[in-house]
Amino acid sequence: MTSANPSTLAKRLRLYVITDRRMAGQRSDEEIVRAALEGGATCIQLRAKELSTRQQVALGRLLRDLCHRWGRLFIVNDRLDVALAVQADGVHLGADDMPVAIARQMLGPDAVIGASAEDVAQARRAEQEGASYLGVGPVFPTATKPDAGPPIGLDRLAEIARAVNIPVVAIGGINRDNAPQVLKAGASGVAVISAVVAAPDPRAATQQLARAVGL
Amino acid sequence: MTSANPSTLAKRLRLYVITDRRMAGQRSDEEIVRAALEGGATCIQLRAKELSTRQQVALGRLLRDLCHRWGRLFIVNDRLDVALAVQADGVHLGADDMPVAIARQMLGPDAVIGASAEDVAQARRAEQEGASYLGVGPVFPTATKPDAGPPIGLDRLAEIARAVNIPVVAIGGINRDNAPQVLKAGASGVAVISAVVAAPDPRAATQQLARAVGL
Repeated sequence: MTSANPSTLAKRLRLYVITDRRMAGQRSDEEIVRAALEGGATCIQLRAKELSTRQQVALGRLLRDLCHRWGRLFIVNDRLDVALAVQADGVHLGADDMPVAIARQMLGPDAVIGASAEDVAQARRAEQEGASYLGVGPVFPTATKPDAGPPIGLDRLAEIARAVNIPVVAIGGINRDNAPQVLKAGASGVAVISAVVAAPDPRAATQQLARAVGL
Repeated sequence: MTSANPSTLAKRLRLYVITDRRMAGQRSDEEIVRAALEGGATCIQLRAKELSTRQQVALGRLLRDLCHRWGRLFIVNDRLDVALAVQADGVHLGADDMPVAIARQMLGPDAVIGASAEDVAQARRAEQEGASYLGVGPVFPTATKPDAGPPIGLDRLAEIARAVNIPVVAIGGINRDNAPQVLKAGASGVAVISAVVAAPDPRAATQQLARAVGL
């Protein structure tokens, strides 16, 4: 597992791409991730709740190898068992996933543990429980996660970023046009799903985002 | 985690009850498990693929406490992360779950690791990869797992039990009438879902099974 030093970590979270089979069309997750890495993604998250454990482990190994060949972070959504089995850099935990404090105990001090937060209270609690970074959003309206709450907007994002000492990655409706405002509000990075995974050319889409976040 | 000594383990696997929310009707998993333990179950498996990780951890803690208060084994289906988080005695792994060899590496030598096997080749492979016991079946026709293969019958069960040195737990359509034949065929224990979980009186149903397997 990778060192969770906040300033180094912040840089590695700058352009964070999350997989989503349903949005990838005919293309494999591997193909999308390869294109995203070529385009400048600094972090990849495997999010594949619909796959069996065995399938997640097989895919996770593939993506872990790709990410590490590029020197990029590889994070697994929810599943600590998959993350441990494939030697990922860490996990991202939502409200229905493993509690952050238990994950920190299980993975040790060096693992990267991300936690979702929608407000200052959740953000502070996650930081106290041992989160390495926060995924904050949805900042803007998004159709990718129909279960997501209403957009929190840039002001709330800024409020949360000021309230914690760990990096904040903004998520939800982020594209190359609004990405600069998101960073200006205090986010260390932007996370995207559809902007890359559903793009006709995921590599070009990632490159445009990379420029928008100053990479 | 519990010692995986085969002969001690065999006894602890004698009457193995697996949870199933869909068959429990209005009753909670906790209520069913409490009744099964009172009725003489020696091992409980939490199988709750439909629950979120957080829900599995919360329920797993409850059931782990109940089982350990009774000195009975507590096993988690598929999820090594949940098993580790709740300090279960081990996991049970099906064909779509974590590979046995990886699970053994992650959980260490003392964890109880069960693996599903339908034939001698699968059984031997699981034993070589580090399984502590085998779940073998379906022995008889069953409506509980619609994705299960055709029944393997008592002869195949006996063949598998002879082929390995670890305990075999028979599963699939087992009831108090056929349980004695199953043990005679070489199984160390019987695993049931509907015979207990769907019973009008799960405690009485478990007691009848306990008598049928000589407890």
